[in-house]
Amino acid sequence: MKAKALILDALFHPESVAIIGASSQETHDGDGWVARLLSFGFKGAIYPINPKAKDVLGIKAYPSLLAVPKPVDYAILNVPAQSTPEVIQECSEKRVKLAHVYGAGFSETGEEGAALQEELVRQAKEGGVRLLGPNALGLYCPAVGLTFDRNLPKSAGDIAFASQSGSCAMRVVRQGALRGLRFSKVVSYGNAADLNEKDFAEYLAQDKESQILAFYLEGVRDEGGFIEEIEKAVRDKPVAILEGGITPGGRRAAIAHTAGGFSPMWSELRQIPGLVIVQSLEELVDCLVAFRFLKKPFGNRVVILGRGAGLGVKVADALEEAGFIVPRLGASAREQLRRIASGAGAMVENPAEPPGPLPVWATFYDSTLPILDDAIEVDLVLMSLTLDIHAGQGMDTQGHLSEVAAVLMDRVPRMKKPVAVILDLGDNIETIRGAWELREVLVELKVPIFSSADAVARGLSHAFRRFVQRGQNA
Amino acid sequence: MKAKALILDALFHPESVAIIGASSQETHDGDGWVARLLSFGFKGAIYPINPKAKDVLGIKAYPSLLAVPKPVDYAILNVPAQSTPEVIQECSEKRVKLAHVYGAGFSETGEEGAALQEELVRQAKEGGVRLLGPNALGLYCPAVGLTFDRNLPKSAGDIAFASQSGSCAMRVVRQGALRGLRFSKVVSYGNAADLNEKDFAEYLAQDKESQILAFYLEGVRDEGGFIEEIEKAVRDKPVAILEGGITPGGRRAAIAHTAGGFSPMWSELRQIPGLVIVQSLEELVDCLVAFRFLKKPFGNRVVILGRGAGLGVKVADALEEAGFIVPRLGASAREQLRRIASGAGAMVENPAEPPGPLPVWATFYDSTLPILDDAIEVDLVLMSLTLDIHAGQGMDTQGHLSEVAAVLMDRVPRMKKPVAVILDLGDNIETIRGAWELREVLVELKVPIFSSADAVARGLSHAFRRFVQRGQNA
Repeated sequence: MKAKALILDALFHPESVAIIGASSQETHDGDGWVARLLSFGFKGAIYPINPKAKDVLGIKAYPSLLAVPKPVDYAILNVPAQSTPEVIQECSEKRVKLAHVYGAGFSETGEEGAALQEELVRQAKEGGVRLLGPNALGLYCPAVGLTFDRNLPKSAGDIAFASQSGSCAMRVVRQGALRGLRFSKVVSYGNAADLNEKDFAEYLAQDKESQILAFYLEGVRDEGGFIEEIEKAVRDKPVAILEGGITPGGRRAAIAHTAGGFSPMWSELRQIPGLVIVQSLEELVDCLVAFRFLKKPFGNRVVILGRGAGLGVKVADALEEAGFIVPRLGASAREQLRRIASGAGAMVENPAEPPGPLPVWATFYDSTLPILDDAIEVDLVLMSLTLDIHAGQGMDTQGHLSEVAAVLMDRVPRMKKPVAVILDLGDNIETIRGAWELREVLVELKVPIFSSADAVARGLSHAFRRFVQRGQNA
Repeated sequence: MKAKALILDALFHPESVAIIGASSQETHDGDGWVARLLSFGFKGAIYPINPKAKDVLGIKAYPSLLAVPKPVDYAILNVPAQSTPEVIQECSEKRVKLAHVYGAGFSETGEEGAALQEELVRQAKEGGVRLLGPNALGLYCPAVGLTFDRNLPKSAGDIAFASQSGSCAMRVVRQGALRGLRFSKVVSYGNAADLNEKDFAEYLAQDKESQILAFYLEGVRDEGGFIEEIEKAVRDKPVAILEGGITPGGRRAAIAHTAGGFSPMWSELRQIPGLVIVQSLEELVDCLVAFRFLKKPFGNRVVILGRGAGLGVKVADALEEAGFIVPRLGASAREQLRRIASGAGAMVENPAEPPGPLPVWATFYDSTLPILDDAIEVDLVLMSLTLDIHAGQGMDTQGHLSEVAAVLMDRVPRMKKPVAVILDLGDNIETIRGAWELREVLVELKVPIFSSADAVARGLSHAFRRFVQRGQNA
């Protein structure tokens, strides 16, 4: 392994962590740095550094980094910006390999901050310490017990996300979690004064724990070779990039946020074949869900099953606009559907519609899924479950959805064709609560879940484009 | 008033309603036709027609329409498709002005159904009965106590929606209600065998109760003069149209749904100046929210206030892509913000960021709103409240948001500049519940609410385009 890969391996797998500026006010159910490591079961040594505390949450505290009797791999600097160069010198003396500078107040604030950051980088380089940040939320690596937010899933997956923004990192993990995404390594790297997007691209491309890569960038350094690393990465793994700061106003915001916005190379990125560029956080999650869970279909013909025929028209429009076909069903499938769903207002075309509201859905899906799985005229089955139009009608939403969940548990694993779902809850507490079990079942079945017609169309089309580009290797 | 306007006025304001095929199984808390009228306080006479029932929910039932001793303005036909021509003959004998044919099974099902529909129309025409439908959910006019869904708001507003689809109608009203939209008249008109989009456009354009018009169309009859009516309507009122069936697959779905999909005139619609064409139900609601609640700003420069600086970058990008400017703040505003929000990681540029999570938001918004209201470099204040990244961190979400709500109650009514809000809850039950009061306060303050960067950008840009087109008359 190359030196750089080694240092990043150490970053993501430290055996000991010092928290410089650990708060003596931390509580076990709070979101302090020590509580986070404890709640995530970090297996290595934890060294809280606080000159005024004897311990933090029962873990022995040290007055300074140099007072720690054993080696420290990774130091989290939770100290004011002005103190960081000095603390980095201590890190160097202690032979800490990597320091994560959490705080802000550096190049993103203007000239003075930029000078401080230069000083910090100079000290780190001289002292042989690699830097994450400054102005970075840091790491979420559930497998080793590192996290920047203790409310994220403790289980690991195979998606890696390098994000210049901490709030984007948290949001993508949280939103993805509800739809079954789990992450191998997430790094929020802020100002990227030392380790930067190119290092993460290079490392994650060869990381066996990471099979799908995502980036949120507020700028790409043209001298850094990021483009080349992404070109390499995308050959083996699906890669999606959310671009931040593509407009003058967005770029000003990026400069103020992470001193990003430099040498935008968006147009070069757009020329990389197979790379997915997205423009919103929601689209990034949709894309990752499709990459992760969509089984490769035989072709691009979609059958839509769901109550609400007018809604189905717009689902069909959105899919066809995105390059899919919503074909007419063959005579045999139509005839079979007609026998099942002959109620007033039920459509037995494509989209096909359950013959009534929630209470009849379980039976409808139980009968129709095998028929459409066998129909040669469609390649992918999309269940469109729009729930809020049924809320408050005196129905047992949770009970009926539980029946639907049971049907899917039985049917979906036996299906030959890929299945995707629109689960549209519409900010309605009753339906969100009522659909909780159904959502968990869909996650367990590894079915890709989307929240709207637009979301499913863009998510599936990103995954599909990769299938097409890779031919039989996808 | 012209004859056609008179008939539509009668449709939306009947003095007596007969429900032919009223179920004797109806319950007071159910969603049957009689229960709906009762729960909405319909003031006119209700005549349930059911040969086997003495009464429905305590209201005297009649064995047939002809047995009703008084005049009937409006008949809802809740009977099988095959029986409708015969029942229409009875309507004619009874001199019912308008009949709403709820059931499906007509031209949308193929040749046989089309023949039945022709027979129905012929009988109606001969008998002097105007038809709504068939295959139509019917009317929601809360002011007179008519509704197709008893869970919709009972209060009326000034938005009219003519929707070929019932599920779209329900969904737009429900989703809009959460964001403060209230409706004057909503009609789901299905197959449009008689009364059609042109009639509704003509009527709603001159309807004093309706100030904003929306349509969901699955086709436009070119012989009908709809284009001309919309051209007229858009001169006086904002008009948004959701197009259904713009792709071959969507059109097939529209044909199966309402026998729509005929002579698509989408390209002619696109040439009407000032008309807003939208492509998703979500976008339609975003557009209506902006039309209804966005105060006219002096210009297009937006300041963004919100926690999550990376999220702010994408809000800035989305706004600038949509034609807005997210300018740098002037020195005075920057200096004032710096005094308020000097915490680590808080941005005092545009976007400006609270110096910490939820607990400090109330103070932040209380101090910054007046500063930005006075800043000459911005025209519109956008609060970007992304809540799910704070969920589960041991904070009193509801309590802190309640403080924010109190600040807004105090500040917003005194502001000179328009305010808009992104309230992004991310399918998280805790934040949705915690934000309930805040949302109600925003609704009360008539602040336009959106759920994402993309949503606010597209919503505001639709409203803004109308401001620009109308100059000082908007």
